[in-house]
Amino acid sequence: MAQSLIEAGHFLYQQGWSPATSSNYSHRINSEQALLTVSGKHKGQLTADDLLAVNWQGVSLEAGKKPSAETLLHTQLYQWKPEVMAVLHTHSVNATVLSRLEQGEQLVLQGYELQKAFQGITTHESTLYLPIFENNQTIPELAQQVAAWLATDPICPGYLIRGHGLYTWGTSMQETLRHLEAFEFLFACELKLRSLR
Amino acid sequence: MAQSLIEAGHFLYQQGWSPATSSNYSHRINSEQALLTVSGKHKGQLTADDLLAVNWQGVSLEAGKKPSAETLLHTQLYQWKPEVMAVLHTHSVNATVLSRLEQGEQLVLQGYELQKAFQGITTHESTLYLPIFENNQTIPELAQQVAAWLATDPICPGYLIRGHGLYTWGTSMQETLRHLEAFEFLFACELKLRSLR
Amino acid sequence: MAQSLIEAGHFLYQQGWSPATSSNYSHRINSEQALLTVSGKHKGQLTADDLLAVNWQGVSLEAGKKPSAETLLHTQLYQWKPEVMAVLHTHSVNATVLSRLEQGEQLVLQGYELQKAFQGITTHESTLYLPIFENNQTIPELAQQVAAWLATDPICPGYLIRGHGLYTWGTSMQETLRHLEAFEFLFACELKLRSLR
Amino acid sequence: MAQSLIEAGHFLYQQGWSPATSSNYSHRINSEQALLTVSGKHKGQLTADDLLAVNWQGVSLEAGKKPSAETLLHTQLYQWKPEVMAVLHTHSVNATVLSRLEQGEQLVLQGYELQKAFQGITTHESTLYLPIFENNQTIPELAQQVAAWLATDPICPGYLIRGHGLYTWGTSMQETLRHLEAFEFLFACELKLRSLR
Repeated sequence: MAQSLIEAGHFLYQQGWSPATSSNYSHRINSEQALLTVSGKHKGQLTADDLLAVNWQGVSLEAGKKPSAETLLHTQLYQWKPEVMAVLHTHSVNATVLSRLEQGEQLVLQGYELQKAFQGITTHESTLYLPIFENNQTIPELAQQVAAWLATDPICPGYLIRGHGLYTWGTSMQETLRHLEAFEFLFACELKLRSLR
Repeated sequence: MAQSLIEAGHFLYQQGWSPATSSNYSHRINSEQALLTVSGKHKGQLTADDLLAVNWQGVSLEAGKKPSAETLLHTQLYQWKPEVMAVLHTHSVNATVLSRLEQGEQLVLQGYELQKAFQGITTHESTLYLPIFENNQTIPELAQQVAAWLATDPICPGYLIRGHGLYTWGTSMQETLRHLEAFEFLFACELKLRSLR
Repeated sequence: MAQSLIEAGHFLYQQGWSPATSSNYSHRINSEQALLTVSGKHKGQLTADDLLAVNWQGVSLEAGKKPSAETLLHTQLYQWKPEVMAVLHTHSVNATVLSRLEQGEQLVLQGYELQKAFQGITTHESTLYLPIFENNQTIPELAQQVAAWLATDPICPGYLIRGHGLYTWGTSMQETLRHLEAFEFLFACELKLRSLR
Repeated sequence: MAQSLIEAGHFLYQQGWSPATSSNYSHRINSEQALLTVSGKHKGQLTADDLLAVNWQGVSLEAGKKPSAETLLHTQLYQWKPEVMAVLHTHSVNATVLSRLEQGEQLVLQGYELQKAFQGITTHESTLYLPIFENNQTIPELAQQVAAWLATDPICPGYLIRGHGLYTWGTSMQETLRHLEAFEFLFACELKLRSLR
């Protein structure tokens, strides 16, 4: 499990989606704990020492290791559904730009074959609604808004924070990485289409 | 032959043309069968086990392995001409965007030296007509439209599906990869030219 | 210390931020000297022989090795604050373009979570003012303008030279690289936002 | 010498400047011959067997190996000046697009610090005139136009062919690669500036 977080970090840093020690990643340990990246580490150079166990209240279970300020945004997803096994929070240029360019409360994606990368979507004719929450340094406030959206049992396995980045999750690290690649592909397409229309 | 599909997958995933387990590739085995990628695999991490033999009706010849829904789009090309040896179906951002931006039934490419990468084109003054078919989850319908175009014996070794991706082929895997690189180069040029004119 | 400059060069060349033997990097040796890249070397292929020690007047302390014309822009930073340990001067496409596109005397960055990569910035609501100095082949003149700005004790650990590139620094090579990645991320965002608004 | 051509090919293919078996490279052997890439080879996978010696008339000195149709564009440069030691002809997206976008007979580059990568240019205030010749499948005609320009003893070590690519040269392979990186940097800047102005 530690290895899957370390490898994810290496890959995501190479893609340019976790620059300048930004981003945080986690993996469920059991029904009460998750393994999370320690705040402020270089994501392309993670070691096992850069990970810490937290409980659902976001409290570190390892002395001397400080969890990210955004820990609650991870743990609320594990509490929401038992099948959520991994959460990736990334900061790509495209996610940042698109979340600022789109001034509404959601990004509406339609007409892309690649939408089928998300479970429950079987045709490009479906519409994917990706929420955009306002950025907020007070994480419990942000978590509350996310919770209200999660309560609607959305199909979309991710959301954007404006000017900040993407949260995405899945039933395994592998599925979560697939979701992330699909979101980033759709962001790249959407930005190019908008720049050319 | 399996190795050429595995290596193609590794290369195409690195290029970003096969993200999020999308795409499928095949290579002719003989006059009745082709080797095809199993549906839903990570294209940068293919192994021999992720390939299966199919016949021209798209039926799997290996128990327990499910061919892609789009198998018929591969097999119709092998049936069309005996010299077709490999088929690559990819999902790049540029192919996706250009096929949505261009609202007509074809992309018209003219004035590029690199058009000469395609057999039968000897000058940049030639015009290359690349068809764009509407995306359709009912593959036999899509295959029928492609068949009608193939019946015109086109020079262009590829076609786009709108919002979906590119199909390209050649007399060897090496030639098919050259065609794909040439198409992607032309897509990148065309998008930049359109954004700047 | 030599190794950290060599590795930085390898990384920065790969990123495309130090093309065509451009750029120069330095690391503080002590309270009177710094180690600096020799002028005109390929930054992706640096060896220990491509580095030389200079004093704060920019004079080479090693016979036969010529320091960069811009040495004074490095040494003035080490003289300014004892905590400055490394300085990176890079030439990315985005820094070059943005510094020419923005015709005022500074780039104003606001609303990005990634601004928090800079010490002293704790919220995306802060505003980061990045100065842009006019390019000038007479380095002492340029250094004088930079000195006037440094005298205001700015939070922003970097500045742009128009049509030329970025200077950034930090309390370690690691922090300096983080600053550079953060600046380049913000430049990429800003250019995309401007092209789409 | 063969090794420098093989390594250049590997690098230029990785940069995306020699896609789909396009491009050709050469290195001077002596006052009468040069070593040139054989037509139609994958530039990222060159071997010594993919090179052939030619004389200044562009005639192959090795039985069974066919030189590129554009051989004369290489040999005329070696005949022009004894200090020309290497010639690189590449096909990047940016060179192709910019040469079509700019409809005049030259690209005018001004205000970039990186212009100083070219010998004889000591300030960003200089102006670099890069000629653009019309593409022409009749190489002797094209060579004649190039010859007329070379007769003016230009400072600029390169020229563009419209919709086709760049020729650049230098007094060593290393310098030629530096020129190429500088041109590609300037093309990228120029395209971004034009798209944003």
